[in-house]
Amino acid sequence: MQNFDYMTPTRLIFGEGVISELPEVMSKYGKKVLLTYGGGSIKKLGLYDRVRELLADWEIYELSGIQPNPKYDPSVLDGVKICKENHIDVILAVGGGSVLDCSKAIAAGAKYDGDPWDLISYKVKAQAALPIVDIITLAATGSEYDCGGVISRTETNDKIGYMDPHLYPAVSFLDPTYTFTVSKKQTAAGCADAMNHIMEQYFCEDSTLQNDGFMEAGLKSLMVNAKKCLENPEDYTARAEMMLDCTYGCNAIYSLGNSYSGWPCHGMEHALSAYYDITHGEGLAIITPRWMKHILNERTVDRFVKYGVNVFGINADQDKFDIAEQTVDATYRFFESIGIPMHLRDVGIDESRIGEMAHHVAENEGLENAWVPLKEQDIANIFTASL
Amino acid sequence: MQNFDYMTPTRLIFGEGVISELPEVMSKYGKKVLLTYGGGSIKKLGLYDRVRELLADWEIYELSGIQPNPKYDPSVLDGVKICKENHIDVILAVGGGSVLDCSKAIAAGAKYDGDPWDLISYKVKAQAALPIVDIITLAATGSEYDCGGVISRTETNDKIGYMDPHLYPAVSFLDPTYTFTVSKKQTAAGCADAMNHIMEQYFCEDSTLQNDGFMEAGLKSLMVNAKKCLENPEDYTARAEMMLDCTYGCNAIYSLGNSYSGWPCHGMEHALSAYYDITHGEGLAIITPRWMKHILNERTVDRFVKYGVNVFGINADQDKFDIAEQTVDATYRFFESIGIPMHLRDVGIDESRIGEMAHHVAENEGLENAWVPLKEQDIANIFTASL
Repeated sequence: MQNFDYMTPTRLIFGEGVISELPEVMSKYGKKVLLTYGGGSIKKLGLYDRVRELLADWEIYELSGIQPNPKYDPSVLDGVKICKENHIDVILAVGGGSVLDCSKAIAAGAKYDGDPWDLISYKVKAQAALPIVDIITLAATGSEYDCGGVISRTETNDKIGYMDPHLYPAVSFLDPTYTFTVSKKQTAAGCADAMNHIMEQYFCEDSTLQNDGFMEAGLKSLMVNAKKCLENPEDYTARAEMMLDCTYGCNAIYSLGNSYSGWPCHGMEHALSAYYDITHGEGLAIITPRWMKHILNERTVDRFVKYGVNVFGINADQDKFDIAEQTVDATYRFFESIGIPMHLRDVGIDESRIGEMAHHVAENEGLENAWVPLKEQDIANIFTASL
Repeated sequence: MQNFDYMTPTRLIFGEGVISELPEVMSKYGKKVLLTYGGGSIKKLGLYDRVRELLADWEIYELSGIQPNPKYDPSVLDGVKICKENHIDVILAVGGGSVLDCSKAIAAGAKYDGDPWDLISYKVKAQAALPIVDIITLAATGSEYDCGGVISRTETNDKIGYMDPHLYPAVSFLDPTYTFTVSKKQTAAGCADAMNHIMEQYFCEDSTLQNDGFMEAGLKSLMVNAKKCLENPEDYTARAEMMLDCTYGCNAIYSLGNSYSGWPCHGMEHALSAYYDITHGEGLAIITPRWMKHILNERTVDRFVKYGVNVFGINADQDKFDIAEQTVDATYRFFESIGIPMHLRDVGIDESRIGEMAHHVAENEGLENAWVPLKEQDIANIFTASL
């Protein structure tokens, strides 16, 4: 078991109707608010109007149009500009993980005098950040309970996972009813994203009995509840359980004391969505089984056996490599069963830029330090197998 | 799934040697420290000398002699007096859960003008508390990661679980090597305490797939690792896993969104250790299987089945009441197997005060609101069955 230093100071306010507590929460952070959101979905939900009504006494500035795979230019830069010009006290992010990720970069940039990219690219360490409150409308990224965000810079094909302890949201509101209208495609992609967060932590050299049990429970719950959500989008309990399952994804509670895994599928997927702007969860679901197949060997096989037996209920009385191969197959088939396109070609990616993407990943994602180290050729092979 | 409002802002610094970070941590909270501890164990460990050496530049006041089932008079009262007279900035609690529980009551009392019992008895709500840093030397209570403590007042036979959000430790240091010298008796009692924390949350009307999986993992890990610790007290990995398992016990992460369970075994055990000053974990282990037997019925049986099948691996292809009875028996036999005396008579309690204790519990612990409501006669019956 490894030493660790852990804290997640975020307050979670969870359940139907909790939004009514928004004014009381916001009153702690000041009167000047930057309200960040994406497209029209929070308006369709009535959530935009509800927030404006609840915060009628606040001075509200807006940054809208934040896209999936949120962009440094214009979103982060525009948000920082609004904060600095108007002396914003607090950011209120309303939407999915992308809106919140973008808001985290804005929160750090607003308290920094130079180019915010200095922070995101880790050239400079943030010394402070604006407080962030969020209202989450999509079960997926876990951004509501971690200190990271992923920002894309189109001109350089960079997609960087930016983490800093200043970026834990102060308060996250999670009302499962706001996810009732999430499409089947996004529900499935959210499930795949959250499952991959767990798998990235599960597949490592050194874990604990409790961590393994936590992660196996998370995976099983996500699979059961995502299917229920797809069958009946207004199943409150299923939406609620899936929402909380996703929340634990990236704040490390699943893997305290575990050895470093390297998050290889995220490293590879970042290139796919930086170059092609695909849905992150779909990219992860496509890559994961191919990565599994690529790293399966005598050293790693026992981990696949444990995962397969405990998560998928695969019969343990078989040759360990047979179990492992059934495990990879079960992972693939689960993603397929929730409607995820399981080939890169299905999401508009062909072989033409695989070499370039593999090179980018090898240069930028540090995957030579992953549990099973990946070099440029390994990455290219995994991409090719995913076509 | 129930609505909830959750936050655990404590920083956990975990692993061998992490104590070297103490000066850096303490420098955030001021120079005047109240160092609290129990008997001589931290001196035997060399931990007392190490702390004094690391904090040579701090102004340190001491409160020692804090007992198991920590006492309002003299410990809490003495600690509050020292804090007020010397304008203490921060409390450093070094020891097990009792030292930390006592320190929490002192932290609240130090910021309150009246009798600290007003706070502990919930007559007055704390408005502030001194910051607390702790170094834990026993894996058991989870006090290092929650905002509660249990305080005994001998003159009135009160033992009250006192919780307040101001009382989360700011920082908890957990070095498993400090638990190498914990006796077999205390190792077993710590395991029973931590297991009971989970069982108190598991046995409720409404839980989630993920919470159940978390709790089952916690229980299984505690059972495996406690046995390893008893066989080889210096097994670092087992001590470390057990220590972290215990940490999650009472901060609600195991049961976010679950319906209220009422923590009935704690309610009953508080009377046993208030009247007889027995070891808390032993009292819990003795009561738990008798409580289980008492509440087993058509309404509760499915929960016992899930617990028995998933935690103890009991064959699921049997009549559900047969499984449930095997589950109760397996729970009893596990506690017995780690050396816990399993009858009240073994720890010096006879029938003479059962009526009085049952009355006290019924009046003070709110168990008529537990998952299975318990009246005075139920409580007396459970005590009698535990003799």
